[in-house]
Amino acid sequence: MPRLILVRHGQSQWNLENRFTGWWDVGLTEKGEAEARAAGALLKEKGILPTVAFTSLQTRAIKTLHLALEAAGLLWIPETKDWRLNERHYGGLTGLDKAETAAKHGDDQVKIWRRSFDIPPPVLDAGSEFDLNADARYAGIPIPNTESLKDTIARVLPYYQGSIVPHLKAGATVLVAAHGNSLRALVKHLSGISDEEITGLEIPTGQPIIYDLAADLAVQDRYYLSER
Amino acid sequence: MPRLILVRHGQSQWNLENRFTGWWDVGLTEKGEAEARAAGALLKEKGILPTVAFTSLQTRAIKTLHLALEAAGLLWIPETKDWRLNERHYGGLTGLDKAETAAKHGDDQVKIWRRSFDIPPPVLDAGSEFDLNADARYAGIPIPNTESLKDTIARVLPYYQGSIVPHLKAGATVLVAAHGNSLRALVKHLSGISDEEITGLEIPTGQPIIYDLAADLAVQDRYYLSER
Repeated sequence: MPRLILVRHGQSQWNLENRFTGWWDVGLTEKGEAEARAAGALLKEKGILPTVAFTSLQTRAIKTLHLALEAAGLLWIPETKDWRLNERHYGGLTGLDKAETAAKHGDDQVKIWRRSFDIPPPVLDAGSEFDLNADARYAGIPIPNTESLKDTIARVLPYYQGSIVPHLKAGATVLVAAHGNSLRALVKHLSGISDEEITGLEIPTGQPIIYDLAADLAVQDRYYLSER
Repeated sequence: MPRLILVRHGQSQWNLENRFTGWWDVGLTEKGEAEARAAGALLKEKGILPTVAFTSLQTRAIKTLHLALEAAGLLWIPETKDWRLNERHYGGLTGLDKAETAAKHGDDQVKIWRRSFDIPPPVLDAGSEFDLNADARYAGIPIPNTESLKDTIARVLPYYQGSIVPHLKAGATVLVAAHGNSLRALVKHLSGISDEEITGLEIPTGQPIIYDLAADLAVQDRYYLSER
C-alpha cells in the first residue's frame, strides 16, 4: 500500500540562532546532520524503505535527505528537488533574530505574523542582502517577497497533487524531506487540520512522520516512526 | 554553449585494496571524499557551473556527485541516477584482489581481461555473495553477469544519446559523476578513440574533464580543468 514519510530537516545554523530563515539558504549544524542520519537509521531499522524522494531547493533539506538516505542504504533511489517544497518565505523578517524582530515590530505584531494563517509579514525590501532575484537556483521561478502560511500551502498542495500523488497512486513509499511550513501544508491536507489549528502545530525536526494510505490515498494510520 | 563535465568517483575502499569492484557497492575512503570535494571546489573556482547532473546507482559515484555539488554550492541542481552509468560488471572477478586473481587465473589471462575491448571475464557464479539479483536497487533492470568494455559501452552510449544529449542540445552544462569504464565509453565516443587504445586510457579520479561543445555537439575543446 502507498505510504508517505515526512521528515523536517535537522537543526540549521539559524534555527540555533533563532533567526527567521525562510528561503535563505542556511546549512545544517552538526546536530542537524546527526538528526538526519538518525532519521535514516530509524527508517532502516523499522524496514520503512522509501522508493522515491522529494525535497526542496534548499541545502538544509537536500542534505537532510542525502544523509538520511545514506544511513538507510538508499542513496540510489530517485530524488526530485522543487522550489514548491521550500520553506515559507518570511519576507522582511528574513535574517532577524527574536530580539531584533521584537525591537523592530513589537512582540504582539510578531505573534500575529507567526500565528496567523493568512497575514504575511512585510515584504522583503528591494536590494536587501536576502534578495534572491540574482540566485541562479530560482531563475524562471516566481520568487515570493513574503508569504503567509496560506500562501505557502497554495504552492505546496498543487505540487503534491501533480507530482507526488501519482507515485502514491502507483503504490510507492514516498519520502519528503522539507521544512516546517511546507510539511504543515501536507499534514493539514492529510490530517484535515483547521486553518486555526495548523499554525500552532509543531513538526519536530528529524522525526519521520508516517502516513499509511489506502489505494485511494485515504489515511489509514498516522504516527511518528520513533513511537512504533 | 553546451558543456560536458566528466568526474570519475574518488578513491573507494576497494580501489585502495586493489579489488575488482564493478557493480558491487563500495563506499568512498576519506581520501575519496576529499577528492570529490576538491573537484567541486575547482568547478566553483573556475566558474564552470553545472546546470544538471547525472550519476549511476552506485554509492561511490552518488556521494562523489553530492560532495562535489555541495562544495560548488550547487546541491540544488537536478540530478538523475541511472544503472546505465554504472561501472563495468567484472563478473567472476568481482571481489578478488590482484594477488587472488593472478593465483586463480594467471597473470596473462588477467591482463587479457583487463586490456581486451570485447572479451568479458568469466561470469559471476550463481549464488555468489556478490550476486545482485535480490538487490531492490536493480529490480526490473537486466543485471549483467559479466561485461567486456564493449558491453559497457553498448549500454552507456544509448543512455547518453537518449537522456544526456537532449540537455546538451538545449545548451546545458552537464555534470556526469561516474566510473572508470562508463566514462571511458563517453570519452571514446567524444574523442573518437579506437577500440585498441581505449582500454589503456586511464581516467584519473576526482579530476573534472571538460568537453566544450558546439551547438551541434562537435567537440571544440577538451581539457582537464586543473590544467586551465
